[in-house]
Amino acid sequence: MIDLRSDTVTKPTESMRKAAYEAEVGDDVYGEDPTVNKLEEKAAELLGKEEALLVTSGTQGNQIAVLTHCNPGNEVIIEANAHLFVYEGASMSALAGVQPYTIQGDRGAMNPSDVAAAIRAEDIHFPETGLICLENTHNKAGGAILPFENMEAIAEIASQNNIPIHLDGARLFNASVATGIPISQYAACTDTVQFCLSKGLGAPVGSIIAGTKEFIQHARKWRKRLGGGLRQAGIIAAPGLVALEEGVERLVEDHQNAQLLADGLAAVNGLMIENIVETNIILVNVEGAGYTANAFLEALKSEGILAVAFGPHTLRMVTNYGVSNEDVQHVLSCVQSLLRS
Amino acid sequence: MIDLRSDTVTKPTESMRKAAYEAEVGDDVYGEDPTVNKLEEKAAELLGKEEALLVTSGTQGNQIAVLTHCNPGNEVIIEANAHLFVYEGASMSALAGVQPYTIQGDRGAMNPSDVAAAIRAEDIHFPETGLICLENTHNKAGGAILPFENMEAIAEIASQNNIPIHLDGARLFNASVATGIPISQYAACTDTVQFCLSKGLGAPVGSIIAGTKEFIQHARKWRKRLGGGLRQAGIIAAPGLVALEEGVERLVEDHQNAQLLADGLAAVNGLMIENIVETNIILVNVEGAGYTANAFLEALKSEGILAVAFGPHTLRMVTNYGVSNEDVQHVLSCVQSLLRS
Amino acid sequence: MIDLRSDTVTKPTESMRKAAYEAEVGDDVYGEDPTVNKLEEKAAELLGKEEALLVTSGTQGNQIAVLTHCNPGNEVIIEANAHLFVYEGASMSALAGVQPYTIQGDRGAMNPSDVAAAIRAEDIHFPETGLICLENTHNKAGGAILPFENMEAIAEIASQNNIPIHLDGARLFNASVATGIPISQYAACTDTVQFCLSKGLGAPVGSIIAGTKEFIQHARKWRKRLGGGLRQAGIIAAPGLVALEEGVERLVEDHQNAQLLADGLAAVNGLMIENIVETNIILVNVEGAGYTANAFLEALKSEGILAVAFGPHTLRMVTNYGVSNEDVQHVLSCVQSLLRS
Amino acid sequence: MIDLRSDTVTKPTESMRKAAYEAEVGDDVYGEDPTVNKLEEKAAELLGKEEALLVTSGTQGNQIAVLTHCNPGNEVIIEANAHLFVYEGASMSALAGVQPYTIQGDRGAMNPSDVAAAIRAEDIHFPETGLICLENTHNKAGGAILPFENMEAIAEIASQNNIPIHLDGARLFNASVATGIPISQYAACTDTVQFCLSKGLGAPVGSIIAGTKEFIQHARKWRKRLGGGLRQAGIIAAPGLVALEEGVERLVEDHQNAQLLADGLAAVNGLMIENIVETNIILVNVEGAGYTANAFLEALKSEGILAVAFGPHTLRMVTNYGVSNEDVQHVLSCVQSLLRS
Repeated sequence: MIDLRSDTVTKPTESMRKAAYEAEVGDDVYGEDPTVNKLEEKAAELLGKEEALLVTSGTQGNQIAVLTHCNPGNEVIIEANAHLFVYEGASMSALAGVQPYTIQGDRGAMNPSDVAAAIRAEDIHFPETGLICLENTHNKAGGAILPFENMEAIAEIASQNNIPIHLDGARLFNASVATGIPISQYAACTDTVQFCLSKGLGAPVGSIIAGTKEFIQHARKWRKRLGGGLRQAGIIAAPGLVALEEGVERLVEDHQNAQLLADGLAAVNGLMIENIVETNIILVNVEGAGYTANAFLEALKSEGILAVAFGPHTLRMVTNYGVSNEDVQHVLSCVQSLLRS
Repeated sequence: MIDLRSDTVTKPTESMRKAAYEAEVGDDVYGEDPTVNKLEEKAAELLGKEEALLVTSGTQGNQIAVLTHCNPGNEVIIEANAHLFVYEGASMSALAGVQPYTIQGDRGAMNPSDVAAAIRAEDIHFPETGLICLENTHNKAGGAILPFENMEAIAEIASQNNIPIHLDGARLFNASVATGIPISQYAACTDTVQFCLSKGLGAPVGSIIAGTKEFIQHARKWRKRLGGGLRQAGIIAAPGLVALEEGVERLVEDHQNAQLLADGLAAVNGLMIENIVETNIILVNVEGAGYTANAFLEALKSEGILAVAFGPHTLRMVTNYGVSNEDVQHVLSCVQSLLRS
Repeated sequence: MIDLRSDTVTKPTESMRKAAYEAEVGDDVYGEDPTVNKLEEKAAELLGKEEALLVTSGTQGNQIAVLTHCNPGNEVIIEANAHLFVYEGASMSALAGVQPYTIQGDRGAMNPSDVAAAIRAEDIHFPETGLICLENTHNKAGGAILPFENMEAIAEIASQNNIPIHLDGARLFNASVATGIPISQYAACTDTVQFCLSKGLGAPVGSIIAGTKEFIQHARKWRKRLGGGLRQAGIIAAPGLVALEEGVERLVEDHQNAQLLADGLAAVNGLMIENIVETNIILVNVEGAGYTANAFLEALKSEGILAVAFGPHTLRMVTNYGVSNEDVQHVLSCVQSLLRS
Repeated sequence: MIDLRSDTVTKPTESMRKAAYEAEVGDDVYGEDPTVNKLEEKAAELLGKEEALLVTSGTQGNQIAVLTHCNPGNEVIIEANAHLFVYEGASMSALAGVQPYTIQGDRGAMNPSDVAAAIRAEDIHFPETGLICLENTHNKAGGAILPFENMEAIAEIASQNNIPIHLDGARLFNASVATGIPISQYAACTDTVQFCLSKGLGAPVGSIIAGTKEFIQHARKWRKRLGGGLRQAGIIAAPGLVALEEGVERLVEDHQNAQLLADGLAAVNGLMIENIVETNIILVNVEGAGYTANAFLEALKSEGILAVAFGPHTLRMVTNYGVSNEDVQHVLSCVQSLLRS
């Protein structure tokens, strides 16, 4: 099987498995797991934040950020297709009691003036704007990279209005590798950041949130309330450390493969690439080939190729550690055969 | 003062005051207030619903509807400028734990196909769509009337997907009086309805929610939890009954006055009416006259005229029981003088 | 009917009705109802607090206090039979996300050392203690008066631990009238106070919460979120003002009638008074007479007398404005006849 | 260091590490991790429930149970010292909006008649009783085993009242090993069960919740909302499977060591064992030796022995996989020396 459904499907590498096997561990609820501590220190350093915290998923990291930054009855300004709004089961409302205020972005990037206009004045009828959320790279926009100046402009507005910014950087390393901008520079635009160890970086489990020492102290308590306080979590942190050491530069391959795949698919009659492929995500429209997304997925599956539907006629393909250059070539010839027949 | 800020500012009429004075009352927490019971029966009958419940405000009625229809983690489809989303302090998220999914409407009316597209499929990542909310007339859209066919089309989609609809009919009587469609016919498109006694109808306090007997039973408990379970509420219900008897037909005057006012303002150089005036709300853009909304409000105030800002250069004026035809004439001459100078 | 079910059943007096009829009103959401403003000023003054706010019920006042003082995940220390815990539909958890920590009191009074022991240390596993709630007089304890020294001792503990205290003083005037301690002196022990206009004082609707200016500012927003922001609320506030002016001293009669009733019932074979009658509440145990509470209530009802069950063999009777000395004599003779037969 | 603070501190065994290293994995959000699936099937089978779900902690399992069984405004009947009430940061109120109704138990066992009396009647003022929670073995009661008849009696009451029961069986295997009653027999008394892989069983991370297929379907969604949906979770599940295979019978040693330690400490002048030691927890009162809990902990720590405070003069010691018979002997001689000097 060539699995292009997501970069979450990657299996741990031999060195990750070995790291888990050998991990020095302790009870992390007591703060005594040396491998977790090492990972959190390393992550904080990479992000240029005071402290970092290991959480079990990107969703957990994002939700903890909302719970820690906001009070019930607050409003969160967020792009209309952000993961936090679309894919997290309305948790920000269910758990934190906050209301999303969505802004339709351009390739995931909200117009700063829209953000400024969305900030609520003080009025008995209005929720208080409690948080601005960004997502970089932006999943639904096809792995689009938020322009750095866009983040800076929104950061400026946030700062003027004394509103914190959280960055859902589940795939922040993809942005960084593609632009050459260090993740710490992205992080400097925001108060808190979440990134995933378990997506392109290839770790089996885990994400990181980072911010000030005080933020992390409160975040730690919310993590406990959500049941994310683990015991010998070094078994997860150890492959996470390997992911940070060995997985970042490797993302370049995913991006090259994505480009190759996108170019190849674009050349096939009836297919259209919907997004500008900047990182590892490709959105393929199959309507011109007379397929629905689901029918095309079925056809691919019978050839041993997996992807996911992202719209009635749109498929998402995500290159990842488990997909080689040869796999991409194989996918392209399968698709060509498929549409020829 | 000529108060055009809202139709909520109306003072109770002599007959309302008299009704309050004479009201037969009892303890409504025990269900023993005959005047409340009479009002609730009358309201249910007018709406063609099994039962109705007196609540202390439109916000309370709307929030009780959300609390009763939904579970935490649900999503509510709602127009992007709906009162429930814009003006209720994010209560639906703070109290009921639900996430609004906003759709930009056309004069407050969501495109039925947008509504259909917004309904969530079953997926571990998605909230469940728990409710569709409509608002008729639509406040932010300048008292626009939801076209009846629009409501019917959305009702059809809701029914096919087994999703309840709540109608925020704070000003439903304005729609009804303007179109001649009985409120029961509007209500028949939706599972539950809220209307206000304290807006155009002129009662000092109170709104109604209505639905099935089972819905009202649960709503009654949520009303108690919100602290809306009153004692000798007949004192409120009595003027509410008068409002239903004497206030509905009178809305015609407000609509006529609004038309007169809008036409007069439109004729003034530099002013533009932003909305199609169908009921009692007028949105006046003052930018062409070189004013900000706030500056224009100040100028009006010094002439004894009150309105509210609805945007940087937009004022809202609402005709109401306290504003006569002569008042409208007076406002027009004041504005003319003001802009002439 | 002689209605001893509660002091909430009282019907408004002629002067209250007249006050409603004549009330000068305005839109209280804009802060423009002069009668509401007068009531709030008067209430604040009586309580010795910076500001006060009219709410629609004791439950609403209590819930707003919890919402304003606490954050989700906090714990509230409260007596095990407090109204806030027993009779408010778990609202403090449903709306404010806080957990009650109950302490079994002695006649409603928590032992200060139990309160001190209940305050949580800082620990990742623990909720933060966010509020201490007192109730005076204590309904379930049969209208028992919290000893002033008890309140002082708990206030001292709260202050040392920097934890706010809220007083559910739904019947605080009953305590004050019985002890001669001004309500401001009780209120001085606590940060915020709620009292009801609609219980013994006889107003048809309404309660007051009071605290600092900053507290009331936040409380006002939570009141709006709960739908308690009213329009021409003067119609409610006016009888509330009469209640404060004419209803307080009159409570002495209720207390005398309660004493008379309790003494009379105690003398009847088979009946036992469970509480020390300090104010207007009597808890009568009817087991010795071979009755269940419900059977006894039925028997009383057929004589035109109403009370409520407070346990399998316990009835609660509450003297109130609608119950005269003669009524009490009548109740006693009915009960005597009943148990003789 | 001899670490008696908890049975959560155990480090994974060689076979657990090897299992993690070799684990066959997949993306568990897609349900494709074969090791997770195997663990969930095995756990369901052991508990005699339709399905089971891997969660990241006992707290997460308990909270998901509350979220899945209850609606906001419900009440949960629970023992006054239960982990869910004392040690989970008020999460049941913060996340699920439910109010705990606590009952003081006898060694952790609530009197069934107290449970029956706590179930709420239908009344507009009352929360609905939504869940009964049990804890076996009971941590705060010193690892006390809930008598099976107690669980049966409460199950009978729950069933009559149509209220679900959740069993916090974080240490259920300790009860089972001590009594010989299979965990499935305990589980049969309840609708849902949570047990920990990471306590006495020795796995590094993870707990299980189990119930009907429908319950698990909803629980899976709540797990996702809490951020507990993991990717290649086989790395955690694999040691969990080893824990189930190799860790259960080994608990007998912990119980023997606890007995030995308790007997030895009881024989030391000034020390008193507060609990009946049935499983692996010992509560030692050090007041008679002139120590506070903290001072005694300090003294032990300087000898390389760790425990935790459980009260001003009480220490908790928990035997576990990392504590051998020799370690126990060493602890006893250290304590003897300490108190002799």
